[in-house]
Amino acid sequence: MQDVPLLISRILTHGSGVHGTSQVITWTGEGEPHRRSFAEIGDRAAQLAHALRDDLGVQGDDRVATLMWNNAEHTEAYFAIPSMGAVLHTLNLRLPAEQLVWIVNHAADKVVLVNGSLLPMIAPLLSKLPTVEHLVVSGPGDRSLLAGATVAVHEYEELLAGKPTGYDWPDLDERRAAAMCYTSGTTGDPKGVVYSHRSIYLHSMQVNMTQSMGLTDQDTSLVVVPQFHVNAWGLPHATFMTGVNLLMPDRFLQPGPLAEMIERERPTHAAAVPTIWQGLLGELTARPRDVSSLTQVTIGGAACPPSLMTAFDKLGMRVCHAWGMTETSPLGTVARPPAHAVGTAEEFAYRLTQGRFPASVEARLSGPGGERLPWDGESAGELEVRGPWIAGAYYNGPDAEPLRPEDKFSEDGWLKTGDVGTISPDGFLTLTDRAKDVIKSGGEWISSVELENALMSHPDVAEAAVVAVPDEKWGERPLATVVLREGSTATFETLRIFLAEEGKIAKWQLPERWTVIEAVPKTSVGKFDKKVLRRRYAEGDLDVTSL
Amino acid sequence: MQDVPLLISRILTHGSGVHGTSQVITWTGEGEPHRRSFAEIGDRAAQLAHALRDDLGVQGDDRVATLMWNNAEHTEAYFAIPSMGAVLHTLNLRLPAEQLVWIVNHAADKVVLVNGSLLPMIAPLLSKLPTVEHLVVSGPGDRSLLAGATVAVHEYEELLAGKPTGYDWPDLDERRAAAMCYTSGTTGDPKGVVYSHRSIYLHSMQVNMTQSMGLTDQDTSLVVVPQFHVNAWGLPHATFMTGVNLLMPDRFLQPGPLAEMIERERPTHAAAVPTIWQGLLGELTARPRDVSSLTQVTIGGAACPPSLMTAFDKLGMRVCHAWGMTETSPLGTVARPPAHAVGTAEEFAYRLTQGRFPASVEARLSGPGGERLPWDGESAGELEVRGPWIAGAYYNGPDAEPLRPEDKFSEDGWLKTGDVGTISPDGFLTLTDRAKDVIKSGGEWISSVELENALMSHPDVAEAAVVAVPDEKWGERPLATVVLREGSTATFETLRIFLAEEGKIAKWQLPERWTVIEAVPKTSVGKFDKKVLRRRYAEGDLDVTSL
Repeated sequence: MQDVPLLISRILTHGSGVHGTSQVITWTGEGEPHRRSFAEIGDRAAQLAHALRDDLGVQGDDRVATLMWNNAEHTEAYFAIPSMGAVLHTLNLRLPAEQLVWIVNHAADKVVLVNGSLLPMIAPLLSKLPTVEHLVVSGPGDRSLLAGATVAVHEYEELLAGKPTGYDWPDLDERRAAAMCYTSGTTGDPKGVVYSHRSIYLHSMQVNMTQSMGLTDQDTSLVVVPQFHVNAWGLPHATFMTGVNLLMPDRFLQPGPLAEMIERERPTHAAAVPTIWQGLLGELTARPRDVSSLTQVTIGGAACPPSLMTAFDKLGMRVCHAWGMTETSPLGTVARPPAHAVGTAEEFAYRLTQGRFPASVEARLSGPGGERLPWDGESAGELEVRGPWIAGAYYNGPDAEPLRPEDKFSEDGWLKTGDVGTISPDGFLTLTDRAKDVIKSGGEWISSVELENALMSHPDVAEAAVVAVPDEKWGERPLATVVLREGSTATFETLRIFLAEEGKIAKWQLPERWTVIEAVPKTSVGKFDKKVLRRRYAEGDLDVTSL
Repeated sequence: MQDVPLLISRILTHGSGVHGTSQVITWTGEGEPHRRSFAEIGDRAAQLAHALRDDLGVQGDDRVATLMWNNAEHTEAYFAIPSMGAVLHTLNLRLPAEQLVWIVNHAADKVVLVNGSLLPMIAPLLSKLPTVEHLVVSGPGDRSLLAGATVAVHEYEELLAGKPTGYDWPDLDERRAAAMCYTSGTTGDPKGVVYSHRSIYLHSMQVNMTQSMGLTDQDTSLVVVPQFHVNAWGLPHATFMTGVNLLMPDRFLQPGPLAEMIERERPTHAAAVPTIWQGLLGELTARPRDVSSLTQVTIGGAACPPSLMTAFDKLGMRVCHAWGMTETSPLGTVARPPAHAVGTAEEFAYRLTQGRFPASVEARLSGPGGERLPWDGESAGELEVRGPWIAGAYYNGPDAEPLRPEDKFSEDGWLKTGDVGTISPDGFLTLTDRAKDVIKSGGEWISSVELENALMSHPDVAEAAVVAVPDEKWGERPLATVVLREGSTATFETLRIFLAEEGKIAKWQLPERWTVIEAVPKTSVGKFDKKVLRRRYAEGDLDVTSL
């Protein structure tokens, strides 16, 4: 067989040629959205590559960063930068300034492409970014913020103007770095994940397979998941393989504009995290729109609440749950029910799982003692995965070996996901907890999330968080921290009996230690911050009752 | 990213695990068909690999041949042989004996797996196959035919019995040979095409992409295209990736049994060459059955006549045209109409093309002088293709470099398909002729097939073949050889006027040389044998009139 490398330039030339009339539609907030054909994206990607090489001196594996919303220009950068051999570094515009600075310096970005609307974010930081030589500004925004900037400032459109619309894309090693994305780093420094041409190409094929997103050129995909977040779940690349139209919301991510763009542009598919969908659902309840075009909704990034899935089903938007992470490109599992469950009572339960592994993602469960656990749908262990689009290391810098922290990769190179769950015999993953939150009691694991959900189903409990605390006999035991509703008459005894009822929770898993708190501490993105609770317990700051 | 190789063993372990309950259903000619789950196929593939390695001494890249129908055992061989590192060599059971002998010797096959029903074919040849050490017989058939055989003879089921159902599949280089298939060799010796693990893996992903066959585990695919023919178009591998059930007809390829198995097993998809479908159509017209399950039919191997497509559409079986060859694994193009044509008058015309190229197949047209021609839907040239599942060479033997005949591969490594056609701007291929049959007239090409079709649309013409003959002024010109119906009053002049009518054929393409023949000579598979006509012309054996 011919030894043809799997390259992003091939996806670009295919998409802009064979699917040249497909469109990237960018929302502008008012009036007619901006439309650019795949053929035009191809022409402009070539122009951008010429500009980066000839005007800005980008060469080798130089990192070119983007601080951009989802739009046509970001899509041009997606293809131009890796295709010319450089590395696309998508910057997360939700990060605190100090993390953004840390990441740009760690990646040693040479160029930053930025949307004008994000200049207020980057302008004050430029003096702390010594590796950045060029700033390229695209779209409306206040350029005066850049007065006195020490970097060279360029206008995106001026750079492209007059450049050739063809580029002799180089024949690269398919394992060469194509793009990078840093994890948000809730614990420790952010970690850089580097995607190769090969990994992105294979991932794109998988996204287009029937049991993944399964879209065709008759579809239009509303990509709400940001392009700075794991390559927008691979959609820009995948759609250029098959001619699916892209509907890009730019900075208009509020429920109102989202509902408006769905009604007006009639996408058939959309992808986003549950929070976005919860917001859209509220909007549609308050102000109903015609969203009948949207029949398939991919939800990932966090578990989809069953109530949300049911509500969307009623609106005719079929939810498809998926699981992945920055380190998995991200497609890890997709919850398409197996043939035998379709149309049966089991179907909904399958759709609520994280989903099934595709052929290219191998999975195994590692138990409390590191032993392999069976795929029996019951044994809970830490999920480890392996595959051609799964990270095998983190990026440590241009002149050092990649970092391989023992807590993220097994000795034989599998990614330790940090997620705890079960796998059914037919390969469906159900996540039950994060590995760092699970309670390791006498060689067995207790899911903090299961205990919390059971507690929160009690009418008197407003919120509950369960954390592991040291125990002399069992190693660790659960501590239940409970926020009671006003006027509650519940006692720890009645709550414990409630948990034990109807086999909700196995007897040996029932907490002995209980405390009432005023509110569960939260992280900046609204997740339970169990670190704080563990620290308060360790410092004797909680009034604990033992049953 | 992790450097995980793309291996057939991964497809097997995925399919037999995650999709373990999917089935390979083998027709037995009477009563309940034989059913084997993917999990059982996985167990038995491991047993087969143990038997081949431990009992038969297969090692390294030894070639293990199969002379088998489409059935569960052939599918076991499909996975066991490449997964253990050996090379699966599928033998075409339609070949004349001398070609079969030539091919087995050329590949130096060490083992042959054979269905009992095919013993009459192989038994008389064994003495001419010096490299074959072992014959493994599966299924019913007269073993007495092997009396006195000089090779070791084994029963398939006895070899497997008691072997472990697990196998530690080796970590191979993904570019290693996995399978081979010889082209039928209508001109010259047969040519061996070697598929790698990588090529088969990528091809399987493509088959499962929405715009190819696009099947899910809710489908059952009736695989009429033989497993000895280009890996049954990749279906056995592709279906193990996604859990599609396989319905295998074994040796029951006649229209009656095919209609019966469709009615009984209710496949949703089927794949075969037009001849099979023509036969099935006749059967269904004569004896209607319930074939309502079958909604998608993939036709390839030869162009699908429009009348056949219309007839199948009426039966609710949607035909999807595809083009490929042994050298292209075979998926080259699939004729799914583009979004803008769906539901319009254009749709049928798109479906009649050979189809659209996927991202991994690059295509270009080479004109009469070797120049590149545009994708304008009008310029006809020889199709050249490039991609990770396209052959880059032919197999010449175990201890020699692969052969690279100049007439099959371009200097830069593209496959010259030998097919002549046009490509539309949106990447749809329409084949008009074979390169060897096209008439090269004054630096332009004339399609012999177009002239033939135009001639055969005349009511007095039973058959017509057009071949190139040398011409002093133009290099080559067309010679029209015509078979007239009984009682015809047509003359060469009236036929020439008929061709020129209504712009059927451009004036400069009209033949000057004409002759009447009794019948068009045919090859063993029923195609026009134009070699014979060219030779008869060269030898002055045709009575040619010049207009």
